Amino acid sequence: MTRILDRIDRPQDLHGLTEEQLAQVAQEVREHIIDTVGEIGGHFGANLGTCELAVALHSLLDSPRDKILWDVGHQAYPHKILTGRRDELHTIRQYGGLAPFCATFESEHDIMGAGHASTSIGYGVGLKEGMLLRGQKPQVGKVAAVIGDGSMTGGVAFEAIHQAGGLGTPLVVVLNDNGMSISPNVGALSRYFNRVRLHPKLWHAREGMEKNLVDLPGGLGAAIEKLGPQFKESIKAFWAPGLLWEELDWAYMGVIDGHDVRALRLALKQAFAAERPVVVHVATVKGKGFAPAEEGGLEGMEQWHAAKPKSIANGSPVAAKPAPADAKPAPPQYTKVFGDAMVEEVRRDRRVVGITAAMNSGTGLNILQKAEPKHYFDVGIAEQQALLFASGLALEGVKPVAAIYSTFLQRAYDQIVHDICLQELNVVLAMDRAGLVGDDGPTHHGVFDIAYLRSLPNIVCMAPRDEAMLRHMLRTALLHDGPIALRYPRGEGVGVPLPAPEEIRPIEIGRGEVLREGTRVALLGYGTGVQKALDAADRLRDEHGLEVTVADARFAKPIDLELATRLATDHELLVTLEEGVLAGGFGSAVWEALNEHPTPGADARILRIGVPDRYITHGKPALLHEEIGFTGEAVARRVLEAIGASTGTPVGTA
Amino acid sequence: MTRILDRIDRPQDLHGLTEEQLAQVAQEVREHIIDTVGEIGGHFGANLGTCELAVALHSLLDSPRDKILWDVGHQAYPHKILTGRRDELHTIRQYGGLAPFCATFESEHDIMGAGHASTSIGYGVGLKEGMLLRGQKPQVGKVAAVIGDGSMTGGVAFEAIHQAGGLGTPLVVVLNDNGMSISPNVGALSRYFNRVRLHPKLWHAREGMEKNLVDLPGGLGAAIEKLGPQFKESIKAFWAPGLLWEELDWAYMGVIDGHDVRALRLALKQAFAAERPVVVHVATVKGKGFAPAEEGGLEGMEQWHAAKPKSIANGSPVAAKPAPADAKPAPPQYTKVFGDAMVEEVRRDRRVVGITAAMNSGTGLNILQKAEPKHYFDVGIAEQQALLFASGLALEGVKPVAAIYSTFLQRAYDQIVHDICLQELNVVLAMDRAGLVGDDGPTHHGVFDIAYLRSLPNIVCMAPRDEAMLRHMLRTALLHDGPIALRYPRGEGVGVPLPAPEEIRPIEIGRGEVLREGTRVALLGYGTGVQKALDAADRLRDEHGLEVTVADARFAKPIDLELATRLATDHELLVTLEEGVLAGGFGSAVWEALNEHPTPGADARILRIGVPDRYITHGKPALLHEEIGFTGEAVARRVLEAIGASTGTPVGTA
Repeated sequence: MTRILDRIDRPQDLHGLTEEQLAQVAQEVREHIIDTVGEIGGHFGANLGTCELAVALHSLLDSPRDKILWDVGHQAYPHKILTGRRDELHTIRQYGGLAPFCATFESEHDIMGAGHASTSIGYGVGLKEGMLLRGQKPQVGKVAAVIGDGSMTGGVAFEAIHQAGGLGTPLVVVLNDNGMSISPNVGALSRYFNRVRLHPKLWHAREGMEKNLVDLPGGLGAAIEKLGPQFKESIKAFWAPGLLWEELDWAYMGVIDGHDVRALRLALKQAFAAERPVVVHVATVKGKGFAPAEEGGLEGMEQWHAAKPKSIANGSPVAAKPAPADAKPAPPQYTKVFGDAMVEEVRRDRRVVGITAAMNSGTGLNILQKAEPKHYFDVGIAEQQALLFASGLALEGVKPVAAIYSTFLQRAYDQIVHDICLQELNVVLAMDRAGLVGDDGPTHHGVFDIAYLRSLPNIVCMAPRDEAMLRHMLRTALLHDGPIALRYPRGEGVGVPLPAPEEIRPIEIGRGEVLREGTRVALLGYGTGVQKALDAADRLRDEHGLEVTVADARFAKPIDLELATRLATDHELLVTLEEGVLAGGFGSAVWEALNEHPTPGADARILRIGVPDRYITHGKPALLHEEIGFTGEAVARRVLEAIGASTGTPVGTA
Repeated sequence: MTRILDRIDRPQDLHGLTEEQLAQVAQEVREHIIDTVGEIGGHFGANLGTCELAVALHSLLDSPRDKILWDVGHQAYPHKILTGRRDELHTIRQYGGLAPFCATFESEHDIMGAGHASTSIGYGVGLKEGMLLRGQKPQVGKVAAVIGDGSMTGGVAFEAIHQAGGLGTPLVVVLNDNGMSISPNVGALSRYFNRVRLHPKLWHAREGMEKNLVDLPGGLGAAIEKLGPQFKESIKAFWAPGLLWEELDWAYMGVIDGHDVRALRLALKQAFAAERPVVVHVATVKGKGFAPAEEGGLEGMEQWHAAKPKSIANGSPVAAKPAPADAKPAPPQYTKVFGDAMVEEVRRDRRVVGITAAMNSGTGLNILQKAEPKHYFDVGIAEQQALLFASGLALEGVKPVAAIYSTFLQRAYDQIVHDICLQELNVVLAMDRAGLVGDDGPTHHGVFDIAYLRSLPNIVCMAPRDEAMLRHMLRTALLHDGPIALRYPRGEGVGVPLPAPEEIRPIEIGRGEVLREGTRVALLGYGTGVQKALDAADRLRDEHGLEVTVADARFAKPIDLELATRLATDHELLVTLEEGVLAGGFGSAVWEALNEHPTPGADARILRIGVPDRYITHGKPALLHEEIGFTGEAVARRVLEAIGASTGTPVGTA
């Protein structure tokens, strides 16, 4: 059996094919994804929805002279397959393999890098205006931005639509409408899309519009003709509800069946011919062609947003774990611990609510939604609004916990500065996915939050060393008066027992904790840095006879000055460990505290260990930690080097 | 002559008045503003537009039980006057006086603090949902958000509208439409508002809508009746174009004459009675009642956005300067130097463009707009889009310079991380108003950018010590390959001669400059810190016989390691000076460089001088600098303390 797909090594190879053949290629792309991603894991549902779209776009365009921008990029696997990366798809998201999203360094067909939502239209306006400015004719260098309906809730998408409408930029937006972001969409925009989507007459509606007008019942058409063009526009609006776009000076076409290559090509051809901003509204099915996703309803689609390895074989998007009879169960994920804790906190204090920005299950707040739906809010992909909403709630004495991945919280930085910290509001920022997140790579690593938060007045920054401390810290945050942030990593906890509800105790703000007493060297960890410190201390003791001090800072702001001073006094080397960038990070905060409050004798050298000053690639966290030297072994080695001991010899003080 | 206004000490004092009396109060408020702000300076035009609106709102509501949120807050002077601050208005924006914007610590009637645009709707959704969550009935605790049409371009406003529409939050948005942000609005949204505004039939249009429908010409009304409610909705849309809102599940009322207290009260009463999201679209005139602003057209309105002291007496919004015959002209503003430089750079390299986010004259890009309109882009109040647009342009080989105030750039932090630095794009960030901006206060101080930018990989951060260096650095930025940021302060340069075009030289990236050689103490300044260092050095020499070294770091990233090492080796004290927060700032960057590359003997103590870890109030920059010890005198004192010399005695080494 030969596939046409095997002959598609560049997008131009699609140009000679018939529409029947193109439809077949799309199906072959789909099967290639099911086979490959089902085996190795990766983003799944959205990619099955864009097979025909990617084929239709590339069959009409001449990439990379023409440019296709894939918003977020987790819907771009078909695009990757069609642009020379078919046979490498099995390496995607793996260390050294294909990037999880579009990446400009990987292919000339990846025009824009992105892992965060809602950026493609804005980039597209710039690209096209740039071409015009460089003297190109409007018809040369076509630009298409493909954006999901979920991404449309991000405010910056609106800003871009507004600018393009104002400029009249010849840009085609393909609104890929599958009625989902990752969780089902929420809010007014979603209802708007639903109204549009559910109207059967609207499929292929725009064509023949003028004709339809005069065919209206009861001689209405003729009467309307007499009323002139403005009235006709209004009537049109009834039949093809792209009003939101048309009011902002975009031409609207839709709704087009996103799995019909012929219909897509027809619409896209018209759109590219228009020398103005055009949106082509396309309806696709997330998980199309894969029965467990398609038939599982909304829940099925959310489950199959991403698939774990071997999931097709297992018939479940979650990897089956080998569980020998005597195996201890794996520690719970931090996300799960947080979700459970939120339910408990809401039941303890009815003023507590959880807020997510379209990351219902990613943040664990799906647990809260199920248990206490009135204390759960999803604002859509709209991190800025998540925090303004939290601010308003806080003003009314509600205790909002905004659960947002560290990397996505970057979108709401100004709200933290201007609307929360300056106003001294009781908002809790719960940052999941803090540190290196692994397979999702550089767009998603949450490594800047320590630096960008601790430089702000009025905020408290903390990080638990394990899942039990997460419980204590969440309670601490809810009892604290003022803004407070909590960061914790992706993945499993370390396996410590969780406290019973009555055992949960708030901890003192700005107070660290010594975990082991030793000599010469003090390891001061923050969050996940504490586990690396303990591992390094074990190695130093077992392999080199050196018993070092280990402490958990618990807070990056305020720094425990007493503890830092004691460690700097009693040791010759003070090592700070953090899973965040070193520039302006926790280690520098420790030095700043010591520098501002100098104490005679507190003069240990400081060695900072953390994320270096470059963007880190994708891959399993353990590999990435090794790459940057954030492992117990690497820390032990650095310590030995710093105190002038060769790594082979015992250096104990005994 | 007694004014009714003199009896209005709290908003409830309006409740017993007739509508004629209320209209009179509004006019008295207007005159009070003209008299006071014309004398002392301050935000002007927008406040003259909201006199009737503030009176109408407070006459209907019971503040602070009911809540009025004033977006940005520079339209809130009438509100301040009506809520007990009438007699203090003359202190506004002055050190120790009334805050420039709404401030929660100043009055219980200031519900929300804000100086950045587009936040009020989001806060409002949170406030109202918070009330409902705390068990209040929908009719208790009314919430109104007053937002200008310019602020509507900010994406977060859209995010908030979307959430409120989704939740059905009983919230009233008053869209204060004066056709301006600070500069005339741009883009599609502006055209949308213009269409609405310019349609004379639409004033007071919504009432009687149903009746209008059946009165349509040609028996159309009756025919439409038969078509059912959905069709009627569509026809309605033609008569009252609030489509953008209605599509997002808001009820739309408008356009209402914003200077007609009776019309405003009628509309607002209906709006507050509806238990759902309602927008009341109000047309106001910026500068209403003040002829030079009203009659000066768009230019007049922009000029009179804010007035300098004594401007009424002078008949010009710009303060007349006393100019003795022999006086040197004042140095040019950094903003003006930048604007002129942009014109030169565009003429040197046609790939250069300037981008502003609704700060046309504030950034100096009005100069570019006039000289080279095709190389100028205004995206509206939409900083995120400004940078995505810049990214797209950069991909096409255009050289975009995004000129955004340091404080407003916070809105686009994620775009800097994810769309510019990660993608290594040639985007220049020109940050005006970096440091303490003065009268505009804590919402506007640009003190975080050093910390939030230098922690990102791939970016270069620099700051000129004077206006000549600004010219060299802009050239440097445009020739640099990769993201690069440039920060400079509000206000006048230091008075050095500007280089002629042919004298402009790019400087070496990461290379500082020694300005004076001395002993014992090295002062290492960044940007405005250099001038403070020079001043301190003069004082130390003249008053204490101590000749210290002064250097200009020029770059906060990368740090000039060679220079830092030399200074730390040859001196006992290394003082860093920066007009930014110390937490994670420039001083820490210097230490980090020395710490990562230790050199034997490079062990000077480090003293960091900059902005402390709290929000700084408003007032003249000189006063604020004194408050935080950022003056030559204070620096000299700190130096003497640090080297153990009493301040009275010469401590020279001779």
